[in-house]
Amino acid sequence: MTTDEVKLYGLDGSPFVCRAKIALNLKGVKYQYFQEDLSNKSAELIKYNPVYKKIPVFVHNGSPISESLVIVEYIDDAWKGGVPILPQDHYQKAQARFWAKFVDDKCIPAVFKAIGSHGEEQAVAEAHEQLQFLENELKGGNKFFGGDNINLVDISATFIAFWLGAAEEALGIKVLNKDKFPKLTGWCDNYINCQAVKDSLPPREIIVNFFKKRFGN
Amino acid sequence: MTTDEVKLYGLDGSPFVCRAKIALNLKGVKYQYFQEDLSNKSAELIKYNPVYKKIPVFVHNGSPISESLVIVEYIDDAWKGGVPILPQDHYQKAQARFWAKFVDDKCIPAVFKAIGSHGEEQAVAEAHEQLQFLENELKGGNKFFGGDNINLVDISATFIAFWLGAAEEALGIKVLNKDKFPKLTGWCDNYINCQAVKDSLPPREIIVNFFKKRFGN
Repeated sequence: MTTDEVKLYGLDGSPFVCRAKIALNLKGVKYQYFQEDLSNKSAELIKYNPVYKKIPVFVHNGSPISESLVIVEYIDDAWKGGVPILPQDHYQKAQARFWAKFVDDKCIPAVFKAIGSHGEEQAVAEAHEQLQFLENELKGGNKFFGGDNINLVDISATFIAFWLGAAEEALGIKVLNKDKFPKLTGWCDNYINCQAVKDSLPPREIIVNFFKKRFGN
Repeated sequence: MTTDEVKLYGLDGSPFVCRAKIALNLKGVKYQYFQEDLSNKSAELIKYNPVYKKIPVFVHNGSPISESLVIVEYIDDAWKGGVPILPQDHYQKAQARFWAKFVDDKCIPAVFKAIGSHGEEQAVAEAHEQLQFLENELKGGNKFFGGDNINLVDISATFIAFWLGAAEEALGIKVLNKDKFPKLTGWCDNYINCQAVKDSLPPREIIVNFFKKRFGN
């Protein structure tokens, strides 16, 4: 059996790159990490992702894959051992894909807008509307969207679990209130304390500083 | 073995609903079709898709699924017989998902903008930029993005194959030129003449009239 060559091109501050790192950690896959400079993108990044020229790019034995959720599904397919990231049941799998897409299409843009507006009332109300759907999805006493284990939905929501808190700290605002979102705030704690997640997150101060620079007064 | 109850809530003119119909036809699945009136949405649509309240909604034995590409992947998972819609190879599968997402995120919006602008030069140039990626993906003498058979990418690009031509006719414009996109225009013909696709498409005049009303002078 030959050894797999596994490469990830990313940027430590990116929640999308972090998704791929978490999936690789969950599967126990060793990989080479290449930190990109987005103001001077590497020839490899441009070669491997000619459509978007964006991170993350994942390369397995020379074959490149882009788009973080596509990468996460691929990792789950290619390394069957370890924790499954997609549910095995067809219907549960479809639901996981639906919610991961919802996080990307609706939740993150609304939350980002609330952050960018420095917590302006209407923007926060719109973010709350989307976050409420996630709150309702944490059914019963479930630790994660995946139940007892992390699944695709949890990984998709890494931005909510970690980046949002850092933005709140940086700007002195509150979007994810504990009293309004008790399950979701509980989930954030559970999630960022999972070993595979904890080992993938960038230092919090890097993210706090990013938001201070980008949106601070 | 009990009989599956399979329902699709849709609208004949929607390319996204058409994706689900094509997948069901490819698998030979019989289903009940419910035509929605978007100005007066049914209680079922709102119950089954509380997040978006949008078509298509697919309901299998009482369990609802939304988002057309999620529905198509579910149909492929749940009915293993018939033509596979997703490649079996993990890497090819990831590539199919990447390109289907590209069609949704980049190609359809750019083409729709070119249509809405009545073929304005800059908008058409931007659409061409995206369509060129698809042209390049039709490698060798492949009939379809899936090779000899339709796959997820073909289904995702139903709008390009059928709706775009109807819009060009309605507005007297040209976005998809045969000389610039010989493979893609050839693919359009191959695709809309597949039996499973042909049986799913709405009458062309309905779509032509839609574009005349929506964008005509």
